[in-house]
Amino acid sequence: MKRVGIDVGGTNLKAGLIDESGHILVERKIKIAAVEDQESLAWTLAQMTQDLAVDGHIPISEIASVGVGVPGAVEIHTGMVLYTCNLPMRNVPLRRLFHHYLNLPLYVENDANCAALAEYYAGAGRGSKRFVTVTLGTGVGGGIIHNGKIYHGSNGMAGEVGHMTIVYDGEQCPCGRRGCWEQYASATALKRMTRRAMEAYPNGILKQVIAENDGQISGQSAFIAARRGDAVGQAVCDQYIRYLCTGIVNLINIFQPDTLAIGGGVSNESDEQLLIPLRNMAAEESIPCNRDRMTRIVKAQLGTQAGIIGAAFLGRKR
Amino acid sequence: MKRVGIDVGGTNLKAGLIDESGHILVERKIKIAAVEDQESLAWTLAQMTQDLAVDGHIPISEIASVGVGVPGAVEIHTGMVLYTCNLPMRNVPLRRLFHHYLNLPLYVENDANCAALAEYYAGAGRGSKRFVTVTLGTGVGGGIIHNGKIYHGSNGMAGEVGHMTIVYDGEQCPCGRRGCWEQYASATALKRMTRRAMEAYPNGILKQVIAENDGQISGQSAFIAARRGDAVGQAVCDQYIRYLCTGIVNLINIFQPDTLAIGGGVSNESDEQLLIPLRNMAAEESIPCNRDRMTRIVKAQLGTQAGIIGAAFLGRKR
Repeated sequence: MKRVGIDVGGTNLKAGLIDESGHILVERKIKIAAVEDQESLAWTLAQMTQDLAVDGHIPISEIASVGVGVPGAVEIHTGMVLYTCNLPMRNVPLRRLFHHYLNLPLYVENDANCAALAEYYAGAGRGSKRFVTVTLGTGVGGGIIHNGKIYHGSNGMAGEVGHMTIVYDGEQCPCGRRGCWEQYASATALKRMTRRAMEAYPNGILKQVIAENDGQISGQSAFIAARRGDAVGQAVCDQYIRYLCTGIVNLINIFQPDTLAIGGGVSNESDEQLLIPLRNMAAEESIPCNRDRMTRIVKAQLGTQAGIIGAAFLGRKR
Repeated sequence: MKRVGIDVGGTNLKAGLIDESGHILVERKIKIAAVEDQESLAWTLAQMTQDLAVDGHIPISEIASVGVGVPGAVEIHTGMVLYTCNLPMRNVPLRRLFHHYLNLPLYVENDANCAALAEYYAGAGRGSKRFVTVTLGTGVGGGIIHNGKIYHGSNGMAGEVGHMTIVYDGEQCPCGRRGCWEQYASATALKRMTRRAMEAYPNGILKQVIAENDGQISGQSAFIAARRGDAVGQAVCDQYIRYLCTGIVNLINIFQPDTLAIGGGVSNESDEQLLIPLRNMAAEESIPCNRDRMTRIVKAQLGTQAGIIGAAFLGRKR
């Protein structure tokens, strides 16, 4: 049997036909702008599923399920999208609408949870029973998997690890709180820290690195400057890793997962600059200290494909 | 069937015979100082179980299981006590030793987890599927219950919510980290804050309240002063609740439990002074904002009996 996973992103709607081991056999994408309303979304999902069956040379009957990941809140039992950040839709009964077009099981899930599920089954979390993912992007997302199941909490909103205060009375967060981890460990926060350092040391290597990038500060700028021996860039990296580690150790002390995987753009930095210093710092701070029972901190493996793969696995986990 | 629960505390070893609904039928306690070594501990547990059967007028065969809660780390699958804070013992194969004296199923668990299990089955967590307890005592303990099961993590050490940093670079914690929640929300922390306020305002009502208590600062001092209209005492209470709330909202954003129960000495303060301001603050800060899906924040109901009751329930949950 094959499955279809669809990742409803900010720009594109990406869909893939997946085999049981999580390989993407064929893939399609369309611009999210082409989706006008909830009827059109349901129709698009059904159409893409049929197109993937054609591309994959299989009858539609060989597709066991269709999964959809959205950046927002869902009601998994009813297959309802409560809201998404990227589409002007509220309370969309997606499963019901989809079934007007195609009679296949449809599952709906938050996209960060899809990514976590993908890593659990086919990536960095393979072989783990208790698995946590942290995604360092525009914000800080989280996914908690326990014995193959996504932990949803009582209302489907659990796992908002980015909105854990680590700096009391710290930076204001759009969520309403102050000092959320997201304000210190996201790519956005790293860029803000980099900009402040550049402004404080306007004649240094960091400024030069940014100038070479057409004046654009990126999440890589400080890491590049540090590799060129810049103390200012290195200080930004050190501070960033310390903030990152603070939240990671909070999660370890709370969950003690077998494996904690870090994904998102920032996680692509070299192990020497990111993962190794992070692991050393976390080993010193977390409970317990005996090394044979410590959480493994690793990089996520599936990158931007995790959304599609995890959405496809939504059917499998039931 | 009845069960025996035994709470190995700092001063006493308390044991109770429990019925299926969690009522303590008869109770016994001895000084922990009477326990000399691991053999003597195992023998004592067996002897107390037999004494409880006699006191309760039941044959030993009517006792379905014996549970033991210890303040420390255990290996639940083998019934081993890895270490405890209050006894100079390491790696005690308690189940095996106990079976030399009595052939009843023996379960071993961390005492904070026992308390959480008790509240889940017979106290503040009844009817909840996802339940978190926070105990405000010398430290801040936590217990996480998911569908009737204690969440242990990969190594049995999960749920150390007190060692979640909420104040980056804050107060030093004995665990090695800085700014742990425990350093701000425990009774110990409340006393420290009270002492500092008293020293800053040595002629106020707060000082007087403490003088009336033979000069002893307690976790109640600031609350009593506040009730007498003292602005300094009120400021301590406000600050304490704000710190408490920071960690509570972190846990809500991560777990979104149906119910979160607060226990320990501090939780005995009046609702007007503690629970209501805490609930209001948490409602403003936590995700999501829609009130019908919010975590209920309540007081724990079983007090110091939770340890015995939860230990007894260890057998039931399997």
